[in-house]
Amino acid sequence: MNFSFQVEKKDGGSKARAGRLATPHGEIKTPVFMPVGTQATVKAMTNDQVLRAGAQIILGNTYHLYMRPGHELIREAGGLHRFMNWKKPILTDSGGFQVFSLGDLRKLTEEGVEFQSHLDGSRHMFTPEKAVEIEEALGSDIMMVLDECTPYPADFDYTKHSMERTHRWAKRCKEAQTRDDQALFGIVQGGMYPDLRKKSAEEIARLDFIGNAIGGLSVGEPKPVMYEMLDVVTDTLPEEKPRYLMGVGTADCLVEGVARGVDMFDCVLQTRIARNGTALVRNGKLVIRNAEYAKDFRPIDEACDCYACRNHTRAYIRHLIKTGEILGAILLSIHNTRFTIRLMEEIRGHIEAGTFGEFRRGFMEDFRI
Amino acid sequence: MNFSFQVEKKDGGSKARAGRLATPHGEIKTPVFMPVGTQATVKAMTNDQVLRAGAQIILGNTYHLYMRPGHELIREAGGLHRFMNWKKPILTDSGGFQVFSLGDLRKLTEEGVEFQSHLDGSRHMFTPEKAVEIEEALGSDIMMVLDECTPYPADFDYTKHSMERTHRWAKRCKEAQTRDDQALFGIVQGGMYPDLRKKSAEEIARLDFIGNAIGGLSVGEPKPVMYEMLDVVTDTLPEEKPRYLMGVGTADCLVEGVARGVDMFDCVLQTRIARNGTALVRNGKLVIRNAEYAKDFRPIDEACDCYACRNHTRAYIRHLIKTGEILGAILLSIHNTRFTIRLMEEIRGHIEAGTFGEFRRGFMEDFRI
Ligand SMILES: [Zn+2]
Ligand SMILES: [Zn+2]
Repeated sequence: MNFSFQVEKKDGGSKARAGRLATPHGEIKTPVFMPVGTQATVKAMTNDQVLRAGAQIILGNTYHLYMRPGHELIREAGGLHRFMNWKKPILTDSGGFQVFSLGDLRKLTEEGVEFQSHLDGSRHMFTPEKAVEIEEALGSDIMMVLDECTPYPADFDYTKHSMERTHRWAKRCKEAQTRDDQALFGIVQGGMYPDLRKKSAEEIARLDFIGNAIGGLSVGEPKPVMYEMLDVVTDTLPEEKPRYLMGVGTADCLVEGVARGVDMFDCVLQTRIARNGTALVRNGKLVIRNAEYAKDFRPIDEACDCYACRNHTRAYIRHLIKTGEILGAILLSIHNTRFTIRLMEEIRGHIEAGTFGEFRRGFMEDFRI
Repeated sequence: MNFSFQVEKKDGGSKARAGRLATPHGEIKTPVFMPVGTQATVKAMTNDQVLRAGAQIILGNTYHLYMRPGHELIREAGGLHRFMNWKKPILTDSGGFQVFSLGDLRKLTEEGVEFQSHLDGSRHMFTPEKAVEIEEALGSDIMMVLDECTPYPADFDYTKHSMERTHRWAKRCKEAQTRDDQALFGIVQGGMYPDLRKKSAEEIARLDFIGNAIGGLSVGEPKPVMYEMLDVVTDTLPEEKPRYLMGVGTADCLVEGVARGVDMFDCVLQTRIARNGTALVRNGKLVIRNAEYAKDFRPIDEACDCYACRNHTRAYIRHLIKTGEILGAILLSIHNTRFTIRLMEEIRGHIEAGTFGEFRRGFMEDFRI
């Protein structure tokens, strides 16, 4: 096993911690934000640009890669790292989240989930065993168990049964794993019910995965509810293992997630809003496509060290977005990714320096949605 | 005046020559291919990527920039160089070509050309004086006179009258120029009539521009006809001034254009076909989106030194194109631009070494459309 996780420093006033996660493709300093490379590319960015943004690890989506180009082709290429020529760690999800998003096109049983392709209507089935088979073909450093991301809202009974099936599937995934150079992470579910969340965290902890993820949050619930669930889960999960909060990446949730003991985050928001002409800044967002930036010859963010901010103005980027030029999406994707990773670097610095509490208060005071 | 042009070496067996063109933003080694940055961006590429492709100068389109963001805004930004943060030379066209492409939306008189915006239907007029005013606001190193790109086919009388108006407009542009840090180039027209081409070249030469362009070619005529017209024109234009063949950039035409004494070329093809999933290679094209490349784990071109070829496979790039990922367009734009500039570097090397004739024969034998 080429994995290890060390908590190097704990914050005195919260559950925040700075750590190091060793993987076969290198070490990751936590807390970490992982840019999403759904279809074997972080959208609108070259690998070089992703690296220069400070990325230590990226995410790949099993559902999309299974559909196109197919996991067998990626296996032939030598795995996802070689296929896309990304030399640092990769985490893959199980495909479950995308399949469950297909709505009427999928059917859930104890065995797994049957679904029709969103591309050509062809029929497929993901079982826990199949998810692991695909993720082993992809060869990610960290792979996720197949789970059901419980919808929101959902009643107690549905949530409980769904959670219990997720636990059974987690066990099957563990049994299906054949490679020991990939770390399998369990996923905690339990909806918005604190007692189910606690039960799920205990059960997933008992299965002794290399790391533990928290799923089914940021699905529409109010933020205080999310934070409450997070607190229950991180109080229950073992301290010595990395914790990954799935699909959460707005700046406020990153700060508050870290404060609750989360080590890893991912989100598509950074590159998605970039393509719509929106830039992340310290206190929220700049909708660069708005007319007020037409003659604004300042960078997006004076303090940012990214290629876009070092080289271009709001007025220029607005022009690119307004005229539909690809470079607009490129520059904003670079900025938003770097912005988020720089925030994580700052957070880690404050944890190390013992000033995280103060930073957190100041940050949350300034932050607007 | 910060301009000078030196012919450094002439080929023995053709009119090919290697030269150096000095401009306020640096020197250009000719023959040169100029990537097109229509809307203040070479499509799908950052400035850094354009520079790494070896670009010495890029093109901006006056019509597009006049429409969006407007030449006044670019003037306020400090000119096109500062607006887009491109520090090397820029050439701007006069906007005429795009306006004449508007068809029914434009009306031509001696005064100039009236047209409706393709974006919002608003009414505008380009006169020779207006074109120069806009190009001076853009602050390009090289600006072009307003001309009519004679349609193909066109009868002798139309062609002659159009050409004569182009000459009168050229004179008016020269008289309208107020800045001496921009070089104004004349444009030779004359359709597919050798005697008109000769007359136009004589007349434009007489107006004593800093450089001379050849317009109205590659508009649908057979290549032998284009080469014949080129020969007439370059036999007539002065040797000591740079010659620019407008809008021509397929590999065979670059080699044959250089052989006929052309120094400068531009073309949108490189980045346009990139976005459609096509790569330029030595003997023609690879339609990377085709199924035959699905498991082709070689680079586009083993001999190419570009970022795409150094880092990625045909199979990966095909996957990106098939899934509509922006990175596909980025990588192919980088490759096609570098491919074309590398070809020009090779051509220049052969002119310097006295081996251009041999190179040309070999190249044209291998080349397929
Ligand atoms: Zn930035
Ligand atoms: Zn290449």
